[in-house]
Amino acid sequence: MSELGPALPWVVRETGLSGEALGTSALRQVESVFALANGHIGMRGNLDEGTPCGMPGTYLNSFYEERDLEYPEAGYGFPESTETIVDAPNGKLIVLTVDDERFDIRAGTVRHHERRLDLRAGTLRRDVEWVSSSGAAVRISSIRVVSFPHPAVAAIRYEVEALNRPVRIRIDSDLLANEQQPDQSDDPRASAVLDAPLEPLAHSSDLLLHRTRRSGMEVASAVAHVGPPLSTSSEPDRIRAVVSTTLAPGVPLRLDKFLAYAWGMPGPVDKAAADQRDAPVVDEAGGGRYEGRPAVSRGAGNVRDASSTSAVDNGVTRPDGGSGSVVDKALADRDEAVRLGFDALLARQREYLDEFWETADVELDGDPEVQQGVRFALFHVLQAGAQAGPHPIAAKGLTGNGYDGHVLWDTETFVLPVLTYTHPACVGLALRWRHATLDAARERARELRLAGAAYPWRTIGGAECSGYWPAGTAALHVNADIAAAVLRYVAATGDEKFLREAGLEILVETARLWSRIIHTDDEGVAHIDGVTGPDEYTALADDNVFTNLMAQLNLLGAAEAAERLAAVDVTADEISEWRSVARRLFIPYASRREVHEQHSGFTRLQEWDFDGTKDDDYPLMLNFPYLDLYRRQVVKQADLVLAMMLRGDAFSPEEKRRNFVYYEARTVRDSSLSAPAQAVLAAETGHLDLAYDYAAEAALLDLRSGGEASGDGLHIAACAGTWIALVQGFGGLRDHGGHLSFAPRLPRRVPRLSFCLRWRESRLRVTVTPTEVTYEVSGADLTFEHYGTPVTVAAGERTTIALEPVEYRPAPPSPRAPERRT
Amino acid sequence: MSELGPALPWVVRETGLSGEALGTSALRQVESVFALANGHIGMRGNLDEGTPCGMPGTYLNSFYEERDLEYPEAGYGFPESTETIVDAPNGKLIVLTVDDERFDIRAGTVRHHERRLDLRAGTLRRDVEWVSSSGAAVRISSIRVVSFPHPAVAAIRYEVEALNRPVRIRIDSDLLANEQQPDQSDDPRASAVLDAPLEPLAHSSDLLLHRTRRSGMEVASAVAHVGPPLSTSSEPDRIRAVVSTTLAPGVPLRLDKFLAYAWGMPGPVDKAAADQRDAPVVDEAGGGRYEGRPAVSRGAGNVRDASSTSAVDNGVTRPDGGSGSVVDKALADRDEAVRLGFDALLARQREYLDEFWETADVELDGDPEVQQGVRFALFHVLQAGAQAGPHPIAAKGLTGNGYDGHVLWDTETFVLPVLTYTHPACVGLALRWRHATLDAARERARELRLAGAAYPWRTIGGAECSGYWPAGTAALHVNADIAAAVLRYVAATGDEKFLREAGLEILVETARLWSRIIHTDDEGVAHIDGVTGPDEYTALADDNVFTNLMAQLNLLGAAEAAERLAAVDVTADEISEWRSVARRLFIPYASRREVHEQHSGFTRLQEWDFDGTKDDDYPLMLNFPYLDLYRRQVVKQADLVLAMMLRGDAFSPEEKRRNFVYYEARTVRDSSLSAPAQAVLAAETGHLDLAYDYAAEAALLDLRSGGEASGDGLHIAACAGTWIALVQGFGGLRDHGGHLSFAPRLPRRVPRLSFCLRWRESRLRVTVTPTEVTYEVSGADLTFEHYGTPVTVAAGERTTIALEPVEYRPAPPSPRAPERRT
Repeated sequence: MSELGPALPWVVRETGLSGEALGTSALRQVESVFALANGHIGMRGNLDEGTPCGMPGTYLNSFYEERDLEYPEAGYGFPESTETIVDAPNGKLIVLTVDDERFDIRAGTVRHHERRLDLRAGTLRRDVEWVSSSGAAVRISSIRVVSFPHPAVAAIRYEVEALNRPVRIRIDSDLLANEQQPDQSDDPRASAVLDAPLEPLAHSSDLLLHRTRRSGMEVASAVAHVGPPLSTSSEPDRIRAVVSTTLAPGVPLRLDKFLAYAWGMPGPVDKAAADQRDAPVVDEAGGGRYEGRPAVSRGAGNVRDASSTSAVDNGVTRPDGGSGSVVDKALADRDEAVRLGFDALLARQREYLDEFWETADVELDGDPEVQQGVRFALFHVLQAGAQAGPHPIAAKGLTGNGYDGHVLWDTETFVLPVLTYTHPACVGLALRWRHATLDAARERARELRLAGAAYPWRTIGGAECSGYWPAGTAALHVNADIAAAVLRYVAATGDEKFLREAGLEILVETARLWSRIIHTDDEGVAHIDGVTGPDEYTALADDNVFTNLMAQLNLLGAAEAAERLAAVDVTADEISEWRSVARRLFIPYASRREVHEQHSGFTRLQEWDFDGTKDDDYPLMLNFPYLDLYRRQVVKQADLVLAMMLRGDAFSPEEKRRNFVYYEARTVRDSSLSAPAQAVLAAETGHLDLAYDYAAEAALLDLRSGGEASGDGLHIAACAGTWIALVQGFGGLRDHGGHLSFAPRLPRRVPRLSFCLRWRESRLRVTVTPTEVTYEVSGADLTFEHYGTPVTVAAGERTTIALEPVEYRPAPPSPRAPERRT
Repeated sequence: MSELGPALPWVVRETGLSGEALGTSALRQVESVFALANGHIGMRGNLDEGTPCGMPGTYLNSFYEERDLEYPEAGYGFPESTETIVDAPNGKLIVLTVDDERFDIRAGTVRHHERRLDLRAGTLRRDVEWVSSSGAAVRISSIRVVSFPHPAVAAIRYEVEALNRPVRIRIDSDLLANEQQPDQSDDPRASAVLDAPLEPLAHSSDLLLHRTRRSGMEVASAVAHVGPPLSTSSEPDRIRAVVSTTLAPGVPLRLDKFLAYAWGMPGPVDKAAADQRDAPVVDEAGGGRYEGRPAVSRGAGNVRDASSTSAVDNGVTRPDGGSGSVVDKALADRDEAVRLGFDALLARQREYLDEFWETADVELDGDPEVQQGVRFALFHVLQAGAQAGPHPIAAKGLTGNGYDGHVLWDTETFVLPVLTYTHPACVGLALRWRHATLDAARERARELRLAGAAYPWRTIGGAECSGYWPAGTAALHVNADIAAAVLRYVAATGDEKFLREAGLEILVETARLWSRIIHTDDEGVAHIDGVTGPDEYTALADDNVFTNLMAQLNLLGAAEAAERLAAVDVTADEISEWRSVARRLFIPYASRREVHEQHSGFTRLQEWDFDGTKDDDYPLMLNFPYLDLYRRQVVKQADLVLAMMLRGDAFSPEEKRRNFVYYEARTVRDSSLSAPAQAVLAAETGHLDLAYDYAAEAALLDLRSGGEASGDGLHIAACAGTWIALVQGFGGLRDHGGHLSFAPRLPRRVPRLSFCLRWRESRLRVTVTPTEVTYEVSGADLTFEHYGTPVTVAAGERTTIALEPVEYRPAPPSPRAPERRT
């Protein structure tokens, strides 16, 4: 990991980049940490000059390529192809040459190198002082922004200043497609596709147009520079703008680079509209000086046919005569960004974030690292989800290509709950994306010989992309997870329009899936057999408690919504059947051990030999076959414990206490999704110090614990889990049945925790100390429960309630204890 | 299917080959039916002239290539490569040209076309009368033999006779490597490997030397012709011998072609020995006439370097200076075959088969098709197993490349029992092959974090080649199946030398596997969790009864053998532990339904919707996902029923009756391994007509029912299952605990069944009629049980015992009833 220095409240600061930090693995990791995104476009934290580099990365949400999946022994219903996010043209590249020596932090002398991810400004800032081999000292700084309010736009301000003598400088500012990728896979076919995924269609000095070879998606990448005079050239995969000049000491050169992307499946041909597009406004003000109003360079405005190099009219830019819509959109967005200017983009970015933090910020006293960690985590949750809709929020957000850029159940289970309470606008959009893929899910259900809709375990565009079905397609709980997110969002926001237009259909179709898969035995007990729950060290189990309880929620929620909205295509019999089977679902319980069974028979299985397991045997899946894992009481990640969090209403406090201790001793936490739920249930069952250790683990996972796992992207769900661990753990937030409740309790080392959330028209701030909690409401009166007692606080009022002293129980034994937070 | 005509007792006759029978699928099927093999080498029943062709095929046992396995989502322990049988150089090709027109049954006029697979002669004979487009009538006949007593040798006698006028003929007799294969796989990599799997190393006019590109196995293919003068040429992938002459009507031309193959991993260089090899004896007798002692042509005796085409000394034949051992062996075997001559090969073939049939033949009166079918089946079982050792007996024998030429549990469970009682010599060798692969199995056990030996689910050379582990590696029962075959073979033959040298180590190492995987619960009950039994529509189940009972057999058998032979590396504690866990293994029983559970919880699962399943939905695995199959009470193939056959001692007669009816209603028989066990248990539980229908299904599966499934090779285990169905079903043969017992009972339509078996020094003939059974013993006195009563028959004596009339029960309802045998 690079040198992050002491934790600052609102800034993640890297104070040096040398030595081990220049290794590929370390670079990949810090590039993820410093990634900027807005849910729509994402840019990894690569250095401006492109090298050294762990992995380049410019991602556009849902811009993907397809490739075949091959199986040694295929089976019915195994997906035949998959979707893989591809690297979009890289506009981050700005290469500086000083007196003919290329600036590289591995050469010359780096006097100072600092990067700052500013969580309130929403920028990545870099400041360097570098002395070339020949002794020329320069100050280089850049500010990078991926705009929240202007989701198609990113911009970079690049400044160079000579410090000790006049220097000749040259700046090559590139927009580069089909950049070479590092090897990521042993599969030669995967690399073959990903090596040059983009087919060039057209290029000009300010726009590249490409198409993915198989999925046929088009991307238009537009660039403009504002600043000193430039010479610009283009080829099919590159636009290059070059500044050559001599800098006098003390007179900095400033170059503002504006990027805009538009992408999608090619639309219908609308040549007339394209022809009528206004000619781009080229603002020719400014000249050879660097101060004052700068020149704007958007190139010559001609787009060349990539295959022939003949210049064609810019109005219709594609040689095949298709629609110019993505071209139009990219150019228009680019022009708007140029019109606003870099400073305005920064100002709007801060304005957007100020509003976000007003609700989302969590203040935690007594532990600056965790304080920084939770803000860093929330910032990345926002970056993943802010402008994602109507596209998915992927497991890695737009910070890397891990999981091929797929979205999994993480989003609905961890990310959307946090956004529901902090930034609800984007949740409706994210769920509308699920609604938009309902046809694919219905088709998949038909293929699986089921009913209703079967959402994919992994996808970008809506098709199932899971290549190992026992831990993929068999995890049918993803359908209930989506339904639960719908129910939570509607309950928290009252967004009935969404419910009518999208949510209801999701609820109904997933309920139909459950209704089909649930089997009632001879004694009238209902079962869900042969599916996989959250714990991927168990597969194809009968009556997984998590799945059954979430399906129950799904069925009852669908019934209620269909009835209330009088859904036309749902019969009363169907509703009645949903309620009936939901109430008869079997919840296995081991009477002798007095704990719930993760699935039927789980507690009878062989115990894992923890004494015989070495530290480097973890994660177990890399060192033991599923054959061994599946048949034992070893839990990869919270499963029954997660059920107790999401369906806490289905367990008594005593059951929670016993279950938590039992499963804690068997959970190895080989997934980053585990710690947050363990934190919440540890807190609820009185193991507050343990809960805090888990919360801290989640908060610091990507930022400080590092590990290679962050190299291909951050763990966005674990980021969201940080909020969950703190707010649901120590604030005791629950929303069972759409009712808000709290049960605050702090661990010993936290003197104060304050968080805020939105609930319909209200905004509630909760501030917890060891002795009391204060509920402060604005917007509208709000009623909720405090430790089971209804409390109503009027808008503009606050209520303070004393807290009982918490009994500090010793932590239960765990085979894989989190690091003790000291 | 081609026109097989009425069933003859000892011959499978095809009376025509035209119309639909010329389609690729039909051709593939009949090529499998007419395949000749001896366990060592195999030749599909392709036409001499090579076209039309379903799939060419010349297979050498364990001559395979390796290729990578790719997984969309790999897991620990998934095999990274697999072994695939490859097509060896094809020596079957004899192309005839008549007056410049190439003989092809699709051209000209076919007056007569008959092929006869003679089960006593062990030959494939073909007789054709053909009139060319220009009116030249010729009679063509060929006799093909793959020698049982000379396992490296095959030979073809080819005759042509002009019928109506003198004709110019030309015969091109080829030995052809890297013949083009039909597309067999959607996997482009598989085809890439298989398209030209053999790298030519050297060639001469009588020998080709090749090497597989990755597995590095060498094959030497030698050829010689005896008959008219020939001109011979060679190139890296082909030897061609050409006869050109004019035939007068009534004077047939006869060409005898001798082939010998030797193959294996290249041995140590032994250049001196190779140099000293005697120059081949070239017998130059004979001349231009066709009668009398013919000329022998083995080519010029020079082997050319394939890469340079320069002739090199024949003594050391490989350009890399390696050992000439496979070359020497092939040439020596070829020479020996030539020395013997074709007629002697035929005579020795018949002699060998006479001895086989003396014990193996099953006489069944009243149903000529089934009579023919069981002999056909036994013939192919012999062809698969006769000279297989020390190589495996593959699931398709050497009749096709299905299952990539892999051996599975079929061999030990179905094929070896039949051979144990009919042709035991080859069983010891087949099991010695398992012993030879123990190191690979031990290594696999280590990889799986188990103990002892874990035999592969699919393999050729000993490495696990299964690419879908829930229905592959998880089927650990294969280890007990192998152990059971060892115990049966030793009990039936008393081969203590085998037991000491090979069998004991197999028993001990497999017992160690079970001892490691078995888990004892808090109440002292032992379990085998998360494994897959024979029914592949259920996977990763707990306490599969078949697995548990076979593991029990394995553990107790290993304990007994280790104790009796005082195995040095097995402790008394280990033996005691094996016995202890074996006796405590859980056998799930559903009290309310009063049946055993195939695995724990099976009878609680959802029933399959047979009413909603269409005929073309079978086999279900091609139309339903495992997700749907695994969670239901639907059985692909006999599993509990097979347990009741192999471990009948573990069930009471009443349990068998109830279990059979229960599972019969849930078994869809989507595997050819199912019918034999269903036949046996149907017979034992009194459903004799149903039993006969299943027996007939097994008997006619490859021969008459056809279906595309036989196109890539015959179902050798189902062939063996035919004997099992008849002898174990209607003879009631059992060998539980190494004790021979009978309980004869005939179905209504069979007036007489007679079969024979070997037991140690004895030979026992059992002849059953509806009213009595006669036991006739030769060799040594024999004691066995007849319906539970001990009977001793002295050598040379016979005993006749009256049979109780059988109660004919109605057959239980079955969702997939076998065709009623009328």
